Amino acid sequence: MEQVVSASCLVSLRCTSCGATYPADEIHTTCPACGKVLFAEYDLERAAQTLTREALRSRPWTLWRYHELMPVRDPASRLTLGEGGTPLLRGERLGQALGLSRLWLKDESQNPTGSFKARGLAAAVSRAKELGAKAVAIPSAGNAAAAMSAYAARAGLPAYVFMPADTPPAMPAECRAYGAHVFLVRGLINDCGRVVRAGAERFGWMDVSTLKEPYRAEGKKTMGLELAEQLGWRLPDAIVYPTGGGTGIVGMWKAFDELERLGLIGRERPRMIVVQAEGCAPIVRAFQAGVRHADPWRDAHTVAPGIRVPVAIGDYLILDAVRASGGTALTVSDEEMLEGVRLLARLEGLFVSPEAGATVAAARRLRERGELGPDDETVLFLTGSGLKHLELVEGDYPVLDPDDPGVLDRLAAVAGRKG
Amino acid sequence: MEQVVSASCLVSLRCTSCGATYPADEIHTTCPACGKVLFAEYDLERAAQTLTREALRSRPWTLWRYHELMPVRDPASRLTLGEGGTPLLRGERLGQALGLSRLWLKDESQNPTGSFKARGLAAAVSRAKELGAKAVAIPSAGNAAAAMSAYAARAGLPAYVFMPADTPPAMPAECRAYGAHVFLVRGLINDCGRVVRAGAERFGWMDVSTLKEPYRAEGKKTMGLELAEQLGWRLPDAIVYPTGGGTGIVGMWKAFDELERLGLIGRERPRMIVVQAEGCAPIVRAFQAGVRHADPWRDAHTVAPGIRVPVAIGDYLILDAVRASGGTALTVSDEEMLEGVRLLARLEGLFVSPEAGATVAAARRLRERGELGPDDETVLFLTGSGLKHLELVEGDYPVLDPDDPGVLDRLAAVAGRKG
Ligand SMILES: Cc1ncc(COP(=O)(O)O)c(C=O)c1O
Ligand SMILES: Cc1ncc(COP(=O)(O)O)c(C=O)c1O
Repeated sequence: MEQVVSASCLVSLRCTSCGATYPADEIHTTCPACGKVLFAEYDLERAAQTLTREALRSRPWTLWRYHELMPVRDPASRLTLGEGGTPLLRGERLGQALGLSRLWLKDESQNPTGSFKARGLAAAVSRAKELGAKAVAIPSAGNAAAAMSAYAARAGLPAYVFMPADTPPAMPAECRAYGAHVFLVRGLINDCGRVVRAGAERFGWMDVSTLKEPYRAEGKKTMGLELAEQLGWRLPDAIVYPTGGGTGIVGMWKAFDELERLGLIGRERPRMIVVQAEGCAPIVRAFQAGVRHADPWRDAHTVAPGIRVPVAIGDYLILDAVRASGGTALTVSDEEMLEGVRLLARLEGLFVSPEAGATVAAARRLRERGELGPDDETVLFLTGSGLKHLELVEGDYPVLDPDDPGVLDRLAAVAGRKG
Repeated sequence: MEQVVSASCLVSLRCTSCGATYPADEIHTTCPACGKVLFAEYDLERAAQTLTREALRSRPWTLWRYHELMPVRDPASRLTLGEGGTPLLRGERLGQALGLSRLWLKDESQNPTGSFKARGLAAAVSRAKELGAKAVAIPSAGNAAAAMSAYAARAGLPAYVFMPADTPPAMPAECRAYGAHVFLVRGLINDCGRVVRAGAERFGWMDVSTLKEPYRAEGKKTMGLELAEQLGWRLPDAIVYPTGGGTGIVGMWKAFDELERLGLIGRERPRMIVVQAEGCAPIVRAFQAGVRHADPWRDAHTVAPGIRVPVAIGDYLILDAVRASGGTALTVSDEEMLEGVRLLARLEGLFVSPEAGATVAAARRLRERGELGPDDETVLFLTGSGLKHLELVEGDYPVLDPDDPGVLDRLAAVAGRKG
């Protein structure tokens, strides 16, 4: 009997729109025929031989545990900073506040570089390096840029990052720490994208824009693989996801399909729930209009940079997943997001980004409307860390003198006033 | 045959100095008899029945996987945010730069709240709540305060935190996000400690100062348990640790002893290497003087707040571990620490705190001196995240106009200039 070696089962790239296929082992961005999104395709029969519940039990908890379903061929090409394996935490106190008895919090802020973006960029930069890229570049709201910069540093590749000029200051600083070339751009993320495309052409950078190369989605899909495994090979009733470019939703939806074909889960699917900001909601508008492509959103604004994305190349993939799953799409206001951040920090001890706060606001809204039942098992994706948003915390603190004999009275007075 | 239930095997508290023992299930701080540090003691024979290599294989990767050796009795009392299970990463590129062929990086910044302090405070706050504490309080350089605030929030306990007035701004902001009562104190961490002691007496707070209650060290010791398990039940040749109050060193040393008594490792021990700052090095001075207790350091100053600790109650425990292990203690300058931070970020993709940067500087120095051989298996403990130290990154970025036809020339000029 032939010994089956556990390795990437990647076979080809296929266009999600026109269906054309391409060899996987050359560099591709979007579909050369129609310009739409390419997906990685795997030999799932072969994967099923080694990717078993049993085998997984003794693999380390990074996203590379699912290496059969990852695009990187040579184990030595896998760049790892420990991405993935993030905790799925019970949200008991928050659940009580929202009226949800089975609430889970997937804390993606514990990834390297403080966001779920580490997953996608670990995959994309590893694969870019494996395929011979000489430099990588990205338009980003900040978290993706930081993740790309970190993996590029580990790979020894030059990194070029482009962010809107009004991005929170932690984001460019983090990228610079990793040694990336950091540029601010007057405009939004799509304006950054234009500069990257031009630069990629002129300087030969590999452009790793969201869904404009096939591998970030592969890293993101591990959120779905992990969720199924952490729940004991079942899926929840609903997943609430702060949606910008949509790789998270799209990646997880792809993951569930692959898991079913591997025989690891059944046909059940969670309702996929898209949350966007009132000030930038192209997917919600398209969902409500019953269309499959979203018009660009004008004058996009929100306190949550990661979902200030006026146009998404994968709009049809996001909308297809939401509809096929019986899910929904809704907006929340900036104030509601910040209230969500406060609730997560004060009730659960999780200090997260405004995008993550948006999932709390959405869950509350859907519960109030009855679209989420009290016992619906619901997972909120907390995509990023609050440490990159300290500008949102008021900073004025009482200063005590330890030698002042009245220091405790002073303290009592201040603490009493504050509650 | 009686069924052995896997649970905490805590039996008592014992003074590390006078040897007096106390019941574990009442609240204790330091030894009532002599004022020194109390250690938790376990029934290791009982622990050995359920804490086996085999059993561990299927337990989740948080520090609670070692629950037999943890002080919390009721599983429902275990507060968890996913602490522990941090990656042990190969440091190939940094190792090349330093001349160390077997370099490991233990990335503690991926803990909840961005530092290894989550381990100690998960244990201490869980146990405080289990024993009936009504509020918790801490003097802190910042990271411990953030961790305490997060676990207190999750437990629903009020939190009082006290930091030196010149602590980096991210630290108080993070604590406030969790809803803690935050106070700045004119002075250093020991001055904060005085206020906490007085407040604990007057207001009934549980004081969770470093090594002044027995359970933070229990959480910290899981770094040692984890390291042994991640290396396949062996220990490295050397551990380099940025040392302030010293719970990390002390906790790991205790862990190795327990592991040996459980039969999980042998008698081998790594050399324990203490790194401190040139501007605050009480332990290094005591080590060099050959004494067991350290005099308070005057005018302590360093860019690394976590190791700006002029006096440590556990000085004798730190010094005993360093000496018994054949280790050493050395200082590095602030500039060397920051260079260490730069090297970790640019070569390995890990953006960490200055304390963590100090371990790189120390390893380089020891390698140069020949005290670390080229093939000595060395583990650097990267104790905290760089995201709390963005004040150390210079922040001035070129701003591009996407509609400027000369944008790429501008970009090329700037990128060229920078490298
Ligand atoms: C914190 C955070 N949440 C959510 C998003 C949106 O992610 P996606 O592209 O998967 O829709 C981003 C993207 O930048 C983000 O940074
Ligand atoms: C990042 C960091 N490293 C190291 C230390 C020192 O830790 P220990 O008390 O274990 O010596 C601290 C303490 O505040 C810290 O925050």
